[in-house]
Amino acid sequence: MSLTIGVDVGGTKVAAGVVDEHGKIVEKLRRATPSSSPARTERVIAETVAELLGRHQVRAVGLGAAGFIDESGASVRFAPNLAWREEPLRLRVQEVIGLPVVVENDANASAWAEVRFGAARGHAHVVFVSVGTGIGAGIVLDGALYRGQWGMAGEPGHYRVVPDGRLCGCGNHGCWEQYASGSALAAEAREFARRSPGAAVRLLQLAGGSVEGITGSQVTQAAREGDPVAARCFGTVGGWLGQGLADLAAILDPGCFVIGGGVSDAGELLLGPARAAFEKALTGGSHRHAAQIKLAELGADAGIVGAADLARNAGQAPAGGG
Amino acid sequence: MSLTIGVDVGGTKVAAGVVDEHGKIVEKLRRATPSSSPARTERVIAETVAELLGRHQVRAVGLGAAGFIDESGASVRFAPNLAWREEPLRLRVQEVIGLPVVVENDANASAWAEVRFGAARGHAHVVFVSVGTGIGAGIVLDGALYRGQWGMAGEPGHYRVVPDGRLCGCGNHGCWEQYASGSALAAEAREFARRSPGAAVRLLQLAGGSVEGITGSQVTQAAREGDPVAARCFGTVGGWLGQGLADLAAILDPGCFVIGGGVSDAGELLLGPARAAFEKALTGGSHRHAAQIKLAELGADAGIVGAADLARNAGQAPAGGG
Repeated sequence: MSLTIGVDVGGTKVAAGVVDEHGKIVEKLRRATPSSSPARTERVIAETVAELLGRHQVRAVGLGAAGFIDESGASVRFAPNLAWREEPLRLRVQEVIGLPVVVENDANASAWAEVRFGAARGHAHVVFVSVGTGIGAGIVLDGALYRGQWGMAGEPGHYRVVPDGRLCGCGNHGCWEQYASGSALAAEAREFARRSPGAAVRLLQLAGGSVEGITGSQVTQAAREGDPVAARCFGTVGGWLGQGLADLAAILDPGCFVIGGGVSDAGELLLGPARAAFEKALTGGSHRHAAQIKLAELGADAGIVGAADLARNAGQAPAGGG
Repeated sequence: MSLTIGVDVGGTKVAAGVVDEHGKIVEKLRRATPSSSPARTERVIAETVAELLGRHQVRAVGLGAAGFIDESGASVRFAPNLAWREEPLRLRVQEVIGLPVVVENDANASAWAEVRFGAARGHAHVVFVSVGTGIGAGIVLDGALYRGQWGMAGEPGHYRVVPDGRLCGCGNHGCWEQYASGSALAAEAREFARRSPGAAVRLLQLAGGSVEGITGSQVTQAAREGDPVAARCFGTVGGWLGQGLADLAAILDPGCFVIGGGVSDAGELLLGPARAAFEKALTGGSHRHAAQIKLAELGADAGIVGAADLARNAGQAPAGGG
């Protein structure tokens, strides 16, 4: 059995897992991340990996981090939630643990996991879209992760869908993630509750009476119970999601889209309206095949499994893009 | 010397050239296309190629056609201007001329030519955007044409830039090519002339006094002379072009964009505002490298040169996408 370790480095926690060659997690650990200090985050990563190395024979380690990773898989150029700027993460962790390390964007790692072991098995051209607070994405083309010239590919959350639209954390206006994310879902619901508190009674109930307290998961819960206002919020956000997938299909013509992230827990509540909008918006509709739109299968473990598998493959081929 | 033939099949003409391994055209022919009849168009292609074969030793033939080509490079699924529907073009032409034939989308062929012999030489990841009446495009990733799952990749002209925007020939609203093309340039100028005929006096002069007669090339001419209204039209259309390139960079992170097509004859009149809008809109701007935005170098011959080179390479590797 050939084992590698995958580490999912988020803004608040490090989750590390020992993974076999079939994508099965043999053991998993979670630790809180002291996100304000890059050096301490690296120490937590190294300690967590060291603990697992004490119990397992492991060949390599893959780190998936929420940030822009350079094209050679060595450094974090910029991580909004992790205080990393031009951080040589691979070298730092490699020195401490003495095993080969690869660094990958977390959404890329999840995309890879879904292609290797999840919803997109058997597909050569796949776009993975993680719908959470924002939108993360990973693009697999011709069976390999596509990273672009400088490792920055796969950020469709920041293509513009509305001129002069909603302000985005990136500084621009009208980015896709301001319309097709968990934040957008909660914002829609709050707006509705503000204007029609009578119709949004169930949402307000779940939020303890506070409009500003309404969260994305409460909207999911209400929609599951059949609440029409919550369903309408999913219709709006799912519609923006499907339109964006049609835009990506015009550019990339993938065989399969995989939708993951926290909001995808809502399943068909999100995917139903997304598919309808996709079919309506797909250019050349009747003269082409349409990509499948599937739910992610590996859930929150995708980052660990993908990073571990990328570390395994890095021995055979370089991690960096062409 | 190793020669192949490239044929650029357009809505009104067939242009065929004998091309050497350095992308040099040795001889070129043009014939009118009877676009209403697929069979007669195929006959014109075959006759033009046959005439060139009478004077040159040629190994293979590449056809670049304005339409959706299937993923194996055999058939034209749909060609809006050529009356082709599911047309087995490769087989038909191959039978008549007795040489290996590949079929490629015309913008893909041009993109390939610019990467091999033109503005994008030495780049691995390139997006070629042809700004003509509409927008055509070709995407080269990791040094190879990217065609997608079913050969439909590289149609960013039909991603949506304005919700409920201008009606597009594809049936949708708000497609990029309705804002960043030659048609958009002429439409901007006409709109201006309608509202401020006094300010648009030079444009109206060039168009013989008719607002509806204003064409894209007249706008280019007026802008070259320093006409401020024409320059403003280029500012608007160039701005939409640059925004779209920033959107494509968020998704694909190419090293180089190449801008071709008739409107690119205006050079910096178009590229200046495009670059400004691109820099403003590029997500993660200060934390990343920015792609170059260059003018195409091969002009109207790109389709011939690219198709010929793709035919040459098809001997070494399959023409179809992954």
